[in-house]
Amino acid sequence: MKPRPSFAAAFKGKRVLITGGLGFIGSNLARRLVGLGAKVTILDSLIPEYGGNRRNVHGIEGKLTIHLADVRDRHCLPEFLRGQHFLFNLAGQTSHMDSMTDPETDLDINCRAQLTLLEACRQHNPKLRVVFASTRQIYGRPDYLPVDEQHPLRPVDVNGINKLAGEQYHLLYSQVHGVPSTVLRLTNTIGPRMRVKDARQTFVGVWLKQILEGQPIAVWGGEQLRDFTFVDDAVEAFLLAATHPDAIGGVFNLGGIGQISLRELAATLVAVAGTGSFQVRAFPSARKKIDIGDYYSDGRLIAATLGWQPRTTIKQALTKTLAYYRRELAHYL
Amino acid sequence: MKPRPSFAAAFKGKRVLITGGLGFIGSNLARRLVGLGAKVTILDSLIPEYGGNRRNVHGIEGKLTIHLADVRDRHCLPEFLRGQHFLFNLAGQTSHMDSMTDPETDLDINCRAQLTLLEACRQHNPKLRVVFASTRQIYGRPDYLPVDEQHPLRPVDVNGINKLAGEQYHLLYSQVHGVPSTVLRLTNTIGPRMRVKDARQTFVGVWLKQILEGQPIAVWGGEQLRDFTFVDDAVEAFLLAATHPDAIGGVFNLGGIGQISLRELAATLVAVAGTGSFQVRAFPSARKKIDIGDYYSDGRLIAATLGWQPRTTIKQALTKTLAYYRRELAHYL
Repeated sequence: MKPRPSFAAAFKGKRVLITGGLGFIGSNLARRLVGLGAKVTILDSLIPEYGGNRRNVHGIEGKLTIHLADVRDRHCLPEFLRGQHFLFNLAGQTSHMDSMTDPETDLDINCRAQLTLLEACRQHNPKLRVVFASTRQIYGRPDYLPVDEQHPLRPVDVNGINKLAGEQYHLLYSQVHGVPSTVLRLTNTIGPRMRVKDARQTFVGVWLKQILEGQPIAVWGGEQLRDFTFVDDAVEAFLLAATHPDAIGGVFNLGGIGQISLRELAATLVAVAGTGSFQVRAFPSARKKIDIGDYYSDGRLIAATLGWQPRTTIKQALTKTLAYYRRELAHYL
Repeated sequence: MKPRPSFAAAFKGKRVLITGGLGFIGSNLARRLVGLGAKVTILDSLIPEYGGNRRNVHGIEGKLTIHLADVRDRHCLPEFLRGQHFLFNLAGQTSHMDSMTDPETDLDINCRAQLTLLEACRQHNPKLRVVFASTRQIYGRPDYLPVDEQHPLRPVDVNGINKLAGEQYHLLYSQVHGVPSTVLRLTNTIGPRMRVKDARQTFVGVWLKQILEGQPIAVWGGEQLRDFTFVDDAVEAFLLAATHPDAIGGVFNLGGIGQISLRELAATLVAVAGTGSFQVRAFPSARKKIDIGDYYSDGRLIAATLGWQPRTTIKQALTKTLAYYRRELAHYL
């Protein structure tokens, strides 16, 4: 593998806005960018059901600017955007189930706010370099595996439909209005600072909490294949996407290192933790309707174009994540 | 060709709601349904830039119910939906250019209002049979011709992105919530009662106006291939989609009878009219950015599944449409 760029030249002294910056991936990105000498501003609404958590910026609070604001509040956006060099656009409603019970909130955040934000970019800072966090959910149930970027787009829940519109707005504003944007389609991302109090962000969060609280892990289904990206690898992909000239206007899957069944994943987590157990249970019917079956990504395009590959194995990822929550769990409940 | 069903048994005495029912296709559908003995309610906002026109229901005003209301007014929707047997959902913002200058209005109508409407169906009338008017615009620039339903979905303007979300909501509510819906992807539809005062609905409207006012037709580009559906054929497809059991949950292209270049179309129109002329002009740059090049539909799926095929040739369609506007033009300016 090629050594990764240091990114210091690209980001030192640069102004970077991160929407959803108190969230899981946003805060890990913020920490990395602060380390690179960037002037980081975070915009986060801290909605209790979402990923934002003040603990995520513990220790670097003095080195960045935090605005508690919501991307739906259009009137603030121009002021946030002016003068920025980079926008990492990660604010989103992420729960598939919540999108089905409250579809309009999902639409407000994942469609309307994205369009408003891009309009504000076009009007107030059209050369801002934008990276948008999209999701594998837009593919729906795979026709084939691994799923590449040419796979049909048939989202199976409101969240997937709205995230698809969100990424298409970004590509359109890049293509038609020249706001240079890149879309990353994330698969399951795990690591320190993810939400663990429930499954709204990732079921792996709940599993970790169950392990640490001495409860058996509840595995729904069990045989579904998934792939996972460790958050540090995902952060690397965001930095590359923001700086690589060939990334502009592009859409890239972030693949994980290989695929694994949920049952195997649970067994690995128990093994890594040296404690705990898991129980396989039948899918609840409301969730079954929007389940996508097996999924794993084809990551060849981003490897060929931007030189990005995940480096962290599932075992390493789980080990690091467990170590973090062994220390920090109380701040995430 | 198979004889078409009479539809009388399916619609006689049935309650039918048509959103956008004072518009071009909506009003032609309303006229047909009134003729079949249906109890038709029209919901239309009569926004001046859109397709609605009171003249479109001239002569049948006493045989249906008209509500001037906007699909964005969520609070009225339950009352409109209760007790209906069919919903023909045709209300939409249709101008590609307007969607680029005012993207949020397009989003409000083509995404948000659709989601609200479907939520209202789910809550107040979940067995309502729904047919949604989608558009070829969601395909973007074709990779191949004719374009079938498997073609990648890469809309090139905000209108296309939002219409795609709109049709995906319909399919999702059909699949997950059991609200039986069908999506028709229309290509260029022409005929009596289309908007002719500008190109917001179809450029053919403006051409007709130019012919009838003794102006030369302005043809932008000229070599682009397009296909056309006569509105009576489109109405037939809506009725079939609403009544054929195999249509539920389906997405179907409406194809035209063959493809024709814009230059040829203009020449045909001039020949049919027996008067007038056309001038080919270079594309304006704002429009070029969102132009899709050549397009024509593959209509084999709807032919095989629902037995629908267009019957009206371009020449017949232009002749009938010209005859209508020779009488009625004053009501459409």
